Amino acid sequence: MADYRPPLRDIHFVLDHLTDVGALCELPAFAGLDPDTIKGVLEENARFIAEVVAPLNRVGDLEGSRHDPATNTVRTPAGFVDAYHQYVAAGWGGVPFPAEYDGGGFPWLVGIAMQELISSANMAFSMAPLLTQGAIDLLMHHGSEEQKERYLKKMVTGEWTGTMNLTEPEAGSDVGAVRTKAVPADDGSWRITGTKIFISFGEHDMAENIVHLVLARVPDAPPGTKGISCFIVPKFLVGDDGSLGERNDVACVSIEHKMGIKASPTCVMSYGEKGEGAVGYLIGEANQGMRYMFTMMNNARLSVGLEGLALAERAYQDALQYAQERRQGRAPGAPAGETSLIVELPDVRRMLLTMKALVDAMRAIIYTNAQAIDLATHHPDPDVRQRNQELVELLTPVSKGFGTDMGIECTSLAIQVYGGMGYIEESGVPQHFRDARITSIYEGTNGIQAMDLVGRKLPMRAGGVITDFLAGVAALDAELAAAGDELAVVREQLAAALAVVTDTVQWLMEHGLADVRNALAGATPFLRMFGLLVGGRYLAEAALAARADLAEGEGDTDHLRARLVIARFYAENLLPAVAGLAPAVQAGFDDLYAVGPEALAG
Amino acid sequence: MADYRPPLRDIHFVLDHLTDVGALCELPAFAGLDPDTIKGVLEENARFIAEVVAPLNRVGDLEGSRHDPATNTVRTPAGFVDAYHQYVAAGWGGVPFPAEYDGGGFPWLVGIAMQELISSANMAFSMAPLLTQGAIDLLMHHGSEEQKERYLKKMVTGEWTGTMNLTEPEAGSDVGAVRTKAVPADDGSWRITGTKIFISFGEHDMAENIVHLVLARVPDAPPGTKGISCFIVPKFLVGDDGSLGERNDVACVSIEHKMGIKASPTCVMSYGEKGEGAVGYLIGEANQGMRYMFTMMNNARLSVGLEGLALAERAYQDALQYAQERRQGRAPGAPAGETSLIVELPDVRRMLLTMKALVDAMRAIIYTNAQAIDLATHHPDPDVRQRNQELVELLTPVSKGFGTDMGIECTSLAIQVYGGMGYIEESGVPQHFRDARITSIYEGTNGIQAMDLVGRKLPMRAGGVITDFLAGVAALDAELAAAGDELAVVREQLAAALAVVTDTVQWLMEHGLADVRNALAGATPFLRMFGLLVGGRYLAEAALAARADLAEGEGDTDHLRARLVIARFYAENLLPAVAGLAPAVQAGFDDLYAVGPEALAG
Repeated sequence: MADYRPPLRDIHFVLDHLTDVGALCELPAFAGLDPDTIKGVLEENARFIAEVVAPLNRVGDLEGSRHDPATNTVRTPAGFVDAYHQYVAAGWGGVPFPAEYDGGGFPWLVGIAMQELISSANMAFSMAPLLTQGAIDLLMHHGSEEQKERYLKKMVTGEWTGTMNLTEPEAGSDVGAVRTKAVPADDGSWRITGTKIFISFGEHDMAENIVHLVLARVPDAPPGTKGISCFIVPKFLVGDDGSLGERNDVACVSIEHKMGIKASPTCVMSYGEKGEGAVGYLIGEANQGMRYMFTMMNNARLSVGLEGLALAERAYQDALQYAQERRQGRAPGAPAGETSLIVELPDVRRMLLTMKALVDAMRAIIYTNAQAIDLATHHPDPDVRQRNQELVELLTPVSKGFGTDMGIECTSLAIQVYGGMGYIEESGVPQHFRDARITSIYEGTNGIQAMDLVGRKLPMRAGGVITDFLAGVAALDAELAAAGDELAVVREQLAAALAVVTDTVQWLMEHGLADVRNALAGATPFLRMFGLLVGGRYLAEAALAARADLAEGEGDTDHLRARLVIARFYAENLLPAVAGLAPAVQAGFDDLYAVGPEALAG
Repeated sequence: MADYRPPLRDIHFVLDHLTDVGALCELPAFAGLDPDTIKGVLEENARFIAEVVAPLNRVGDLEGSRHDPATNTVRTPAGFVDAYHQYVAAGWGGVPFPAEYDGGGFPWLVGIAMQELISSANMAFSMAPLLTQGAIDLLMHHGSEEQKERYLKKMVTGEWTGTMNLTEPEAGSDVGAVRTKAVPADDGSWRITGTKIFISFGEHDMAENIVHLVLARVPDAPPGTKGISCFIVPKFLVGDDGSLGERNDVACVSIEHKMGIKASPTCVMSYGEKGEGAVGYLIGEANQGMRYMFTMMNNARLSVGLEGLALAERAYQDALQYAQERRQGRAPGAPAGETSLIVELPDVRRMLLTMKALVDAMRAIIYTNAQAIDLATHHPDPDVRQRNQELVELLTPVSKGFGTDMGIECTSLAIQVYGGMGYIEESGVPQHFRDARITSIYEGTNGIQAMDLVGRKLPMRAGGVITDFLAGVAALDAELAAAGDELAVVREQLAAALAVVTDTVQWLMEHGLADVRNALAGATPFLRMFGLLVGGRYLAEAALAARADLAEGEGDTDHLRARLVIARFYAENLLPAVAGLAPAVQAGFDDLYAVGPEALAG
C-alpha cells in the first residue's frame, strides 16, 4: 500500500492560476493574509495529515467503529482518538472560520484545499471535522449570540464535534417527511422525541461533547418542509459557565454495517427514549429549519464533491506508483524477452491519463466553486458578490454530482491498473472504491443534484446565469486559437461540446417548461454533459496558463507541459462524450412510462 | 434482501427469438432433444438454484471461506458442502457435456442459460463448477483416453472439481513468464515444483478430490509461451481402479482477502514443497500447454462475461423490487401530500430502464455467442462451422469485456436506486457490486480483451469477419424501416452508430497496421463502442421479433411491448455514446507518452 503524498504542486497551480488566492488576500475580510502564509499553512497541514492521519486509513477500515450495545457507546478504531486530539491541538479545524469565533480567518478556498488533504488521507476520519463544520456553518448564521458563545467556539476548536440529524426511517432524502417531535418546556427549552438514521459520528469517543443539530416538528407545525424547526441537542448539557453537566436523553442505539467508510460510525440515534424527551434549544425561529439547512447545503455538497476528488487523487497516486513498480508484459518497442513496467503499456497509460485528467478537472471545478463562495461572501462590491453567488449555485450540483461520479470512476480505474492485486484488500485500493461509493448518494443523491441543476439552476435569472457561463467558454476560443497547433484539438472539441450544450440547454428550457417530466427525465445525462464541459473549460484555462508560464520560463517545465497534455487528452478522450449524451437528455419521458414494472421483470 | 427469481420469461425469449434452440435440436449431435425438454430442464434447474443455491449467497459473503493454516485446509461457508452435494446428486454439472463422458448431451447454449442462473444466485458458489467445466473442456480435447477415463467422468458428475493453475507471483496475466518446473520421473509421470497464485477453489471441502491442471516448464523448454506444458496434478492420487490413494504434495498455503466473491477461496498453491515435487501427468505433448489453454479460453471468457450479465440481472431484480416497495418524494402528477413509490420517479425509471436495456443487450450478445459455439462445433456443414467459429472469435472479447463492464455499471446503478440503504450490507446490493468488480480483471483483463479484439479479431480474414458482421447490422435497416414510427429512433440511431463504427474500424485497420501503438491506445474505447453497437443490433432484432409476435397475437402482450420500449430506450440513451468514443479511438498514442510519470505526479 502506497503512502499518501499530498499533491501540493498541483494544488498550488490551481490556487495561483485557476483561482487567485492572491486577490482573495486583498479583500478586507482577509486583511493580514498573504499567499506565502497560506502556502506555509498548507504545507504544514499536509505534513500533519500525511504523518498522522493517513496511516490510520487502513486500520480504520479493518477495525471499523464498534458499537457497544450495553452502554450505547461507540469506540473508534485504534489511533483515531489520539490523532483527533492532535488535530484539535494544532487548531486545524478552525482555519477557515472567522477570527471572532476563534477561527483562523482563512478563505474557504484554503479550507477546501485542506479538506482535500484530510479526505484523501482518511475519508472516514475526515467526516468528524466535516460534519462539525456543517453544524458550525448553520449555528454561525442562525444561532443566537448566547448559543454561539456556549457552543460555537468549542466546535471551531474541534473540542466538541457536531452532527446533522435530518434523515428518519421511511424518509431518506425526503426531509419534508420528518416526524421527530419537539414540545416546549417551561424553561424555554424544548423536549425532543424521535429516531434519526444515517447520523455520521452521532456517537464516538474522540471528543468530550457532541452538539447534535436536529430537525423536528413543533406542535401545530404546517405539514411538509414548511413545518420543520432546527434544535441544538447536546450530548452533555452545557452549564452557563461552559462546564459539562448531565448526560442528555440521546443515544446511539446501533450503527450500520456499511460497504465503506467503516471507521465513520453511521448511527441510529434515539432522542427522548428514557423520559419526556431530550433537552433541545430552538435555533432562530420555529418552522424555519429548512431555510437554515439550506444555508449550509451548498458548502456541504461542495465538500462531498471534494470527497470524490480526494479519493480519486489518492487512488490515482496508488495506481501511478504501482504502475512504475510492477513489471508485466512487453511494451511496444521494448527489447524482446524483457518484461516492461506496466506504466509503459498503452492501455495502462490511457487509464492513468484518464484518472489524471479527471482529477485535474474536478480540482479545478471544486476550487473555483470554493473561491466563488469567498467572493460571494466577502467581496465589497455587491455586483461581484451577486455574480459569484450565482456561480456557486450553478457549480455546486456539478461539483457534487460530477465530482462524485468521477471519483467512483477513478477509484475503479485504479483497481483496473492493479489488475488481480487490485481486488485484494491488502493493496489498499479496494477501500478507496468502497469508500467512494457513498459519495454519489449522501448529501442529496446525484439524481437530486441533477434535478437541482436542471430545475432550479438553469432557470436562474431567466437563463442568464447559464448563458453567462457558456459565454465564458466561448470567450476562450480566441486564446486557444492564438495558441496554435498545440491546443488545436482542445479548441476544436471545446467548441463542439459548447455547441451541443448550448443546444441542449435551449431544449431543456423549452420542453422542461412545457412538461417538467422532460426536464426530470433528462437531468442526469445533462449533469454529466455539463460537468464534462465545465471540466473542459477549466483544463483549457490551465493549459493556457501553463503555456504562458512556459513562455516566461517560470515554473517546472515538465509539470507545465503536462497541463497541455492533460488538456488535450481530456479534449480528445473524454469531452466528446458530450455529443453522445444529447439524445438521452432530449429523449423525453414517454418511454420511461410506456410499460409498467411487471412488463420489465424477467 | 430480495429473493432471486430466475428470469425464465426473458431467457426463453432469447432462446426462441434471438438464438434458435429448436434449430440446434435438429443437429445430429443433439438428436433426441427438443425445445420442450430443454424448457423443462431449465425450469427444474431454476427451481433448484433459487431454492438451494441462492439463499447461501449472503452467508457466503459474511463467513467467507476460511483457511486453517495448521492443516492447510479450507472450510467453505455454512451450507455450501450440502448444497454442492445436492448439485452433484441432481447431475446439473454434466448437462452441457457429451453423453460419452456421462454428460447430458445438451447444447452449450443451454449450459450457458443454466450458468446464468447459478451465477446470479451465488457467484462465489458457481465458481467451483465453472472452474471444473474449464478443466473438463481442456481434458476432453487434449487428454489421453486413459486420463479421460480416470478423471473426466468424475469431473463431469461434479464429484471431483477442477482448477486452472496459470498465474504465478510476478506473472499476472503474462502466462509466458511461468516458472513452475516439471521434471520427468522414472514411471512416466512428472514431478512438479512451484507456486501458483489466484487459484479459485484450489482447496475446499465440497468434493472428495480436486484435479489441478497446472502450467509448468519441462527441462530445456523454450522461453516464453512456447515452452509451457500442461499437467494433471490430483489432490489425491487416483489408482487404476479409480480409488483415491495417498495425498499428493500440493497444498493451499493461504487464501486472499478479497473485496468480493468471499466464499470462493482464492488460493496460493504450493507444489512439491515437501519433497521432490508433486506427482503430475503430462497432458498431450510437452510445450503445447498454451495451445491447449486456448481451447478452453473462449469458453472461459464467455463464462466471465456471463457473470457480468448474471450479477447485473440479480442487481436489477433487487432494484426493481425495492423501487416498487419504497415510498419517497412525489412523482410528477401525484396528488399533493402523498409520497410516491420511487418507481414512479423519472430518474429512478431512467436507472431501471438503463439496467434492463443493458441486461437484455448482454444476454442477447452472450447467448448468441454460446449458440455460435454449438454451431461451430456441431453443424454438419463446414462452412457454417467456419462462419460460426469466426463469430465466436469476434464476439468473445465483447461478451467478456463489454459484459463485465456493464455488469459493474448495473450493480452500481442498483445501489443508486436503493439510495442510502444501498450502502448498507444487509440490503444485499453492495455484495453484487463487490462481487462484480473482479469480472473485468480475471480471465484476461478487459484491456487484454480490447487488444485481442483490435489486434487479432478485426484483422481476421483480412477484415472480412468484421465486415460481415457490420453488413448484418446494415441489413436490419429495411426491416426497421418497415416497422415505421414504432422503431424509427432505433433505425436512426443504429444507422448512425454503424457509420461511426465502420469508419473507426477502417481507421484502426490503416493506422493500427502502420503503428501498433495506435491500435493499442484506442483498443479500450473501441471495445466499448463495438459492444454498444452489437447490443443495439440484437435489441433491434428482439424488438422486430416481438413486433412479429404481437402482430400474430402470440405471447404476453406487455412483455412483448416492453421489447420495443427497451430497444428504443437503448437506442436513444445508450447507443449514441458510440459517436462520443470515436475521437478517443482515433486519438493515437502521442499524448500518452508526451510526458513521463514524474510530470504526472501531483
